[in-house]
Amino acid sequence: MTASPVRPRVVVVGAGFGGLAAVAELADASVEVVLVDRRNHHTFLPLLYQVATAGLNPADVAHSIRAIVQRQRNVSVRLGEVVAVDWDAREVQLEGQPPLGFDHLIVAAGSTANFFGIPGAAEHGRPLYALDDATALRNHVLGRFEAADADPALIDDGALTVVVVGGGPTGVEVAGALAELFSEVLRRDFGRLEVDRARVVLVEMAGSLLANFHEMSRWHALDALRARGVEVRLGESVVSVTETRVELSSGVTLPAHTLVWAAGVAASPLAARLGVEVGRGGRIDVMDDLSIPGRADAYAIGDVANIGGPDGMLPQLAPVAQQSGRHAARQIIRRMQGRPTRPMHYRDKGIMATIGRRSAVAELPFGIRLSGTIAWFAWLGLHLMTLVGFRNRLSVFLNWAWNYFTWDRGPRLILGRGRPSS
Amino acid sequence: MTASPVRPRVVVVGAGFGGLAAVAELADASVEVVLVDRRNHHTFLPLLYQVATAGLNPADVAHSIRAIVQRQRNVSVRLGEVVAVDWDAREVQLEGQPPLGFDHLIVAAGSTANFFGIPGAAEHGRPLYALDDATALRNHVLGRFEAADADPALIDDGALTVVVVGGGPTGVEVAGALAELFSEVLRRDFGRLEVDRARVVLVEMAGSLLANFHEMSRWHALDALRARGVEVRLGESVVSVTETRVELSSGVTLPAHTLVWAAGVAASPLAARLGVEVGRGGRIDVMDDLSIPGRADAYAIGDVANIGGPDGMLPQLAPVAQQSGRHAARQIIRRMQGRPTRPMHYRDKGIMATIGRRSAVAELPFGIRLSGTIAWFAWLGLHLMTLVGFRNRLSVFLNWAWNYFTWDRGPRLILGRGRPSS
Repeated sequence: MTASPVRPRVVVVGAGFGGLAAVAELADASVEVVLVDRRNHHTFLPLLYQVATAGLNPADVAHSIRAIVQRQRNVSVRLGEVVAVDWDAREVQLEGQPPLGFDHLIVAAGSTANFFGIPGAAEHGRPLYALDDATALRNHVLGRFEAADADPALIDDGALTVVVVGGGPTGVEVAGALAELFSEVLRRDFGRLEVDRARVVLVEMAGSLLANFHEMSRWHALDALRARGVEVRLGESVVSVTETRVELSSGVTLPAHTLVWAAGVAASPLAARLGVEVGRGGRIDVMDDLSIPGRADAYAIGDVANIGGPDGMLPQLAPVAQQSGRHAARQIIRRMQGRPTRPMHYRDKGIMATIGRRSAVAELPFGIRLSGTIAWFAWLGLHLMTLVGFRNRLSVFLNWAWNYFTWDRGPRLILGRGRPSS
Repeated sequence: MTASPVRPRVVVVGAGFGGLAAVAELADASVEVVLVDRRNHHTFLPLLYQVATAGLNPADVAHSIRAIVQRQRNVSVRLGEVVAVDWDAREVQLEGQPPLGFDHLIVAAGSTANFFGIPGAAEHGRPLYALDDATALRNHVLGRFEAADADPALIDDGALTVVVVGGGPTGVEVAGALAELFSEVLRRDFGRLEVDRARVVLVEMAGSLLANFHEMSRWHALDALRARGVEVRLGESVVSVTETRVELSSGVTLPAHTLVWAAGVAASPLAARLGVEVGRGGRIDVMDDLSIPGRADAYAIGDVANIGGPDGMLPQLAPVAQQSGRHAARQIIRRMQGRPTRPMHYRDKGIMATIGRRSAVAELPFGIRLSGTIAWFAWLGLHLMTLVGFRNRLSVFLNWAWNYFTWDRGPRLILGRGRPSS
């Protein structure tokens, strides 16, 4: 594949919120767009924790990339892993495939977990960045309940204890959802097991949960989690981890067979393979028009970029990814038109976190703060509205409605276990 | 776990149609039931091919075993793999778990593929006996389309060719569904790929498809498959297989990167590990009351057993598994009541196979034969009715309705690929 002599080719690496927004913004531009991703589906990351806690099925939060872009005539899709960029040849190099030439490049490779070099964390900590992470966590937790059901002595060893590290939105959401899964669903499934002894421990280094939120929201989240039985340990950090033990900075060692890692975000390793300078969190420090310094033909957006905002760097959030993706696409169009690029200005869409059934906190623009049931319905509505693809939206809604009225959870399947047939 | 001194314990191995029917039949009996399975979910095998061909999501054909039996008070569930039975100690031995004592045993371990020792078949042939088989086949086929999209030279090498071996209901259903997936869905997803060159080749050793069906149904299936572009090769068998080639008995070698193995059924390997005699297909030759010869306390049912019928052995079908499961459970109750056991009498429920959208063949009792649209609706209704669990039924129905009206297929995800995040 060589770049078309007529229409310039824009290569977008990553089909997350940022990459998809950039592609959509280029729909009417006179360019050829190639969207590259390692997976054949977009993953709706804000709901991944619901797959991990058996609230949704994997297919509810994933959508075929080819189906998403099917009606946009100037886009093609390439399934492949980007290993490097040859800036002189203007080629993206793919693992085991011919290189892909580009005239403009948008790097939207997203983020991954940061284990901060804590011993054992990378081996035993379970981050939530991909569908496979979520199904692996679900399989593991359900598998530990099965093991304890067969041998109750494992409870003392921590088989039914989950330690969640990190008190940001992901940590809060996972901890709340796990507590509800244990007390409302697994208690009924495992009638002979002492499910009351299952523990969810949320460990946060700072003195409060949800550091980016207003104090009122933080207190609400803490109360709501504790009401659900989550043990919240503030001002504590993880020192070391083994398969069955989590050692904390206070000297306490928790017997726990499961460790959810929601503590640190780092840029996709692709950032380090581009041959450009990276800054905080391994992210690419971009110019104010989102171009990569010294590379007027290349942009970095979303979680893989350090994007300046009014109060320092913008956080790793879906609206930042979407707005920066659209912005980069517009700058490519401006440059093709011979016009100068513009700096990005972020419009704050607010932040939200859900704690459980009918409990959430939301901070919207204009100082509007919601908590409890109304925040939960706002959260539910927003996520349903923004889920890519109508069919997914319907399926997610049905799963949620079912869970809500029955306290049942259909998706508690252990998938991908065992050999094909015996 | 030791057998209760008061209520005798019935251990049921396998939560397929047969095992679940046996468990349900014991609901009011004064026994303790332990249902053992290697997976935590029941798999609705008749629809597995729809998962493999991206018509349904994995969760649509699987249901949590604990959820299924939750309301039956005398049942507990054990997730584990049975490795042997100690007949003297009356214990089932589980991999990595304490043994499980029993007073009565029902072996309902089902079936697996039979590769007849054909070179390469076990390595490269893809059977459809478990959810993992189906998602692996789907991932592989979609992955081959992605590879050919990146490198069209792979088409000549067979990247877009699927050989289906076996012209029974499974082979016919897979071949028809693949042809529709290629021509109606992937043609639109892969706009730049010559999807017309994708081939589905159905190979059957006998002189006709659907050997158990009436001649009219066989001809209908053959016509309907050929109308969908399936190349049907009758009177041919597979001689050897490599990763990219399938050699046939006529001397023809087909370049094909995918081989679906729907040719032979053998009993679960558990049958051979029981220390009892096995007969045709590795199945356990049972007495006419379904007990294992010489073991009045143990029964074998469904696909793992050779069960005599009016015209020789009964086929491996869901109704046979269900009826034999119920029968074995009733014999256990009769023996507890001091009454003699009875022979099983199979009531024929008919046979069905679907070829594609609005095309199926059905042969019902009293000589009723249906084909085409009416048979397809009969097939659809029957499968919706018998799907375990209301939520799955609803989800399956919505997926089907969506596919039917839009020709779209949501579940075309390649799951479980790549590392967690990079």
